[in-house]
Amino acid sequence: MPALDYPPPLQRLIAQIRTLPGLGPRSAERLVLWLMQDGGRIEPLVDSLRDVGDRVQACDQCGFFIESDHECVLCHSPKRNPHLICVVEQAADVLRLERSGAFSGLYHVLGGKLSPLDNVTPEDLRIEPLLHRVKNQSVEEVILAVGSDVEGEATASYLNDLLRTEGLTVSRLAQGMPAGGGLDHVDELTLYQALQGRRRV
Amino acid sequence: MPALDYPPPLQRLIAQIRTLPGLGPRSAERLVLWLMQDGGRIEPLVDSLRDVGDRVQACDQCGFFIESDHECVLCHSPKRNPHLICVVEQAADVLRLERSGAFSGLYHVLGGKLSPLDNVTPEDLRIEPLLHRVKNQSVEEVILAVGSDVEGEATASYLNDLLRTEGLTVSRLAQGMPAGGGLDHVDELTLYQALQGRRRV
Repeated sequence: MPALDYPPPLQRLIAQIRTLPGLGPRSAERLVLWLMQDGGRIEPLVDSLRDVGDRVQACDQCGFFIESDHECVLCHSPKRNPHLICVVEQAADVLRLERSGAFSGLYHVLGGKLSPLDNVTPEDLRIEPLLHRVKNQSVEEVILAVGSDVEGEATASYLNDLLRTEGLTVSRLAQGMPAGGGLDHVDELTLYQALQGRRRV
Repeated sequence: MPALDYPPPLQRLIAQIRTLPGLGPRSAERLVLWLMQDGGRIEPLVDSLRDVGDRVQACDQCGFFIESDHECVLCHSPKRNPHLICVVEQAADVLRLERSGAFSGLYHVLGGKLSPLDNVTPEDLRIEPLLHRVKNQSVEEVILAVGSDVEGEATASYLNDLLRTEGLTVSRLAQGMPAGGGLDHVDELTLYQALQGRRRV
């Protein structure tokens, strides 16, 4: 007699939920059992997923999400400065920068960062469309707002080499002390960079 | 100008994922952005969910999962002892007990435990079907294999009162030392119960 297990469709769903980021075998099983309670929890989730799959896509130009029948509110806003492009790794980074209120140019979502260990090469990122925009639009400055981890630094360095040949200003986010923290809250590298980048008051 | 946010279908999906157990706002957003990458990650998930919704249901009798066009492998097995019913909180508990290999009777999944603070009352659990089985089938013993936390104890006590009037053996899982652990690995209550329940060797 084979060992008892869940019915095959349930096993397949658990195996699939397990591949989602942040979910292990136990939490996947717990999540699926929760969905099975009360009957009506799967249908709304399926509807929302399908709605997103059908109606949400990336903007051809900037890479942020748009509804399929709408134009991109970022790329088509007359209030934004078209000579300034801010390059970010993920669509979520666009929201973070928008919430800061410090930027009113256009965005360009790369879709990740260079990471040879994870098989992420320049071809996997939206680098060609970025070069195309820089070449064909009147761009004056590209801000590389990628992370300051190893992969982010590598990505910034790679992009800088490509963009320098285009003869435009390339900048990066300042590195230094985070707002509201004392010296005891930052690591040595951050402190070193904050010292290097010190500004006259 | 309203603050920029994701398109509405994406916002709705994030809000919904956030209600799943074990997922907070940040992990829900991360999960949804991951689903949006490469395009093809939503469709297989929708298929699996729909498959489960269409083809998996609870057995009317024991409450464990069955495929819609199959009969319950537990309730209909001629090898299992029909005079013994093991009452558990969740369907997952059935698998755990089966893996232990220590039980070959029938199961009864309650679907939770009594918890006034979470608004779980006797009407929310599969208690009526349990009483019906005990009354109409030749059941000799009911094992209350619920948890030993406060809610589990309350549930066991409640069921014991109901079942005693039926004049059958009602038992609970033994409490004591877990396998493979020394005295330094258990709390005082467990040690107390292990002493109380000591057995002559």
